[in-house]
Amino acid sequence: MRVLGVDPGLTRCGIGVVEGVAGRPLTMIGVGVVRTPADADLGRRLVAVEQGVEQWLDEHRPEFVAVERVFSQHNVRTVMGTAQASAVAILCASRRGIPVALHTPSEVKAAVTGSGRADKAQVGAMVTRLLRLAAPPKPADAADALALAICHIWRAPAQNRLQQAVARHAAGAPMTPMTPMTPKGRTA
Amino acid sequence: MRVLGVDPGLTRCGIGVVEGVAGRPLTMIGVGVVRTPADADLGRRLVAVEQGVEQWLDEHRPEFVAVERVFSQHNVRTVMGTAQASAVAILCASRRGIPVALHTPSEVKAAVTGSGRADKAQVGAMVTRLLRLAAPPKPADAADALALAICHIWRAPAQNRLQQAVARHAAGAPMTPMTPMTPKGRTA
Repeated sequence: MRVLGVDPGLTRCGIGVVEGVAGRPLTMIGVGVVRTPADADLGRRLVAVEQGVEQWLDEHRPEFVAVERVFSQHNVRTVMGTAQASAVAILCASRRGIPVALHTPSEVKAAVTGSGRADKAQVGAMVTRLLRLAAPPKPADAADALALAICHIWRAPAQNRLQQAVARHAAGAPMTPMTPMTPKGRTA
Repeated sequence: MRVLGVDPGLTRCGIGVVEGVAGRPLTMIGVGVVRTPADADLGRRLVAVEQGVEQWLDEHRPEFVAVERVFSQHNVRTVMGTAQASAVAILCASRRGIPVALHTPSEVKAAVTGSGRADKAQVGAMVTRLLRLAAPPKPADAADALALAICHIWRAPAQNRLQQAVARHAAGAPMTPMTPMTPKGRTA
């Protein structure tokens, strides 16, 4: 199973690709960060995130995409950017019929370290060990993306297969997206 | 100036197209709602919003897109969906090199009613009057999208022209003079 993990963000969007199955050693296929300039306008940044994610999907052809679930308890400005970057990543995967799973930060931490309250250093250390890397991936967003992918591989393999089948079916059948109203009734 | 307003949402994404210039009577070109089923997964919903927005952009070719600026002070679940739907709308416009402006709800209310704290009924009534409609557009999301477009037309026309030039340049599209407004091309 090949999973592309996304730690969403506008300034740094971490991406990590991991291959393997639960109970066997895992392999890192790729890791990196999509960056967009903080002084660019929001539209340009979202387009850059889309282009970056598309390149990763093209190159690595994952069977699943795992994205960090965003909560709004944090800083208002940051969380909006994170939610918007995550929307772009989810959109890119869903357009291709790749099933998307959302995992909370504590689910990811618990999966790779055994504790939902582990700190970044601990997550980085475990990602390094589990993927048999020489050093922890930098920046932390890249390590977090790998942790998301590992988390996804380890959670509910049977459920993943079902979700994959559903997503493939759904990708072939677009929903009716628009309810147009004609401007009849105008008086002028 | 033709502006497409977007009141973002996953369940109902209001869209309204208005043409005109500040100081002259405005014309509604189209109004509607992109809906996605609440029981579909997030990825499918974002793809449906993208398809809906793309259809509106294809059909109406706006020179500007105005999107409601999302704040996170509201309900956590709702605000995340709103932020994600807005990201898709901003992405669709920016990919085409259409400049995107964000207006806060109070800016929009103040523009069309004179008060930043006007209620939905007041906004609907003023939209109806300003566009010379027989009745307020339903649902409220559709009226809000029209109000966004009106707000944008009335705010800083000179700034709009500058922003349009920058967005075209940034998108890699050839720099062309602002499209002169002609009555043809309207669908209404």
